[in-house]
Amino acid sequence: MAKVGVVLSGCGVYDGSEIHEAVITLLALDRQGVEAICMAPDIDQMHVVNHLTGEEAAGESRNVLVESARIARGDIKDIATVKAADIDALIFPGGFGAAKNLCDFAVKGADCEVNPEVARLIREIVAAKKPLGAICIAPAMVARVLGDDQLSARLTIGNDADTAAAVNTMGVTHVDCPCSNFVIDRENKIVSTPAYMLAGGIAEVAEGIEKTVKALVELL
Amino acid sequence: MAKVGVVLSGCGVYDGSEIHEAVITLLALDRQGVEAICMAPDIDQMHVVNHLTGEEAAGESRNVLVESARIARGDIKDIATVKAADIDALIFPGGFGAAKNLCDFAVKGADCEVNPEVARLIREIVAAKKPLGAICIAPAMVARVLGDDQLSARLTIGNDADTAAAVNTMGVTHVDCPCSNFVIDRENKIVSTPAYMLAGGIAEVAEGIEKTVKALVELL
Repeated sequence: MAKVGVVLSGCGVYDGSEIHEAVITLLALDRQGVEAICMAPDIDQMHVVNHLTGEEAAGESRNVLVESARIARGDIKDIATVKAADIDALIFPGGFGAAKNLCDFAVKGADCEVNPEVARLIREIVAAKKPLGAICIAPAMVARVLGDDQLSARLTIGNDADTAAAVNTMGVTHVDCPCSNFVIDRENKIVSTPAYMLAGGIAEVAEGIEKTVKALVELL
Repeated sequence: MAKVGVVLSGCGVYDGSEIHEAVITLLALDRQGVEAICMAPDIDQMHVVNHLTGEEAAGESRNVLVESARIARGDIKDIATVKAADIDALIFPGGFGAAKNLCDFAVKGADCEVNPEVARLIREIVAAKKPLGAICIAPAMVARVLGDDQLSARLTIGNDADTAAAVNTMGVTHVDCPCSNFVIDRENKIVSTPAYMLAGGIAEVAEGIEKTVKALVELL
């Protein structure tokens, strides 16, 4: 059974992984007959957001790996312990956690830095010619790593002009895409889909992610 | 568009809502063309569990409504403000939160008490002859309310002998059921499915919940 790494970034759209995107990714992988290997960095979140009020919960701190374990039902690894040789592909659900915890794109835009272990695993996967998937805002984080390596990849974050411009600034090529579809870069084996960057509801998100996961698995 | 209330109990299988079950319920409702109205009680969780270690996070406290808002992307109501007249049906995803926060079945078994606002809304829904759904361990909580009202309902928590016996002790009738299926009590308009009480993976959970939600919507 093929193994696909799923990189989580906390638990909740405003300070961690977008929960719907993460769960739909896990469901789509199971239905494609591949095993999901959940992982996350063992670091503090950038901050904690009260999802009822939308405001920062001042003074609270939570750990990305510990909170991600909620989505993974406890079955999760520290990403620092995972090598590309352990998995057949890698995929990133979205949520602000991808732009606040896995990198600091939410604060610094195109000047962002990516968590060293996350960047390392992306580079190992690309070097091994294994498929890479990125959902919602996660392609912006992937763009930073690939752009730094002068890899002329094509990916999507939907059609937000400012975010698309930032993605292009980092050295890759942004392609507009609706949330019901995905962008595939066959040469670099990279698939991406806008999900909640554009979607109005969970069924729309599922349509795009199911197609993306199917395409990722077909690239194996 | 019909409105179905979804009662959450936190965010994470060990101290709140089972996240996969909650998201799959929301997805199935959207795909059935009905609107999900998320709600939760505005109370402290029984406790906080570190989902990486499985151990209680001593000294930490979290609010059920605030944490449930993570699954609902902030779009959630205090259950105390919701009346049966506001919705067309009601469904409870599982997770230990249903047995620790919505009631204390996890501690007291058949002697449990149900949160007053949760019990009130269940009673209003049943009195209005509107459909009621319960997933995983949530039927045990529903059993306490219906049993107290001498309603001879039929429902399932899968096939765990001790839990089934507790359900029967509370005055309703437990029916064994595999996780790929559901039990329907047409007279009382109650549907239930075992989900992670039995399931080995997320696709199995989805199969049972999708059937359960479809049956719930057909009862409208």
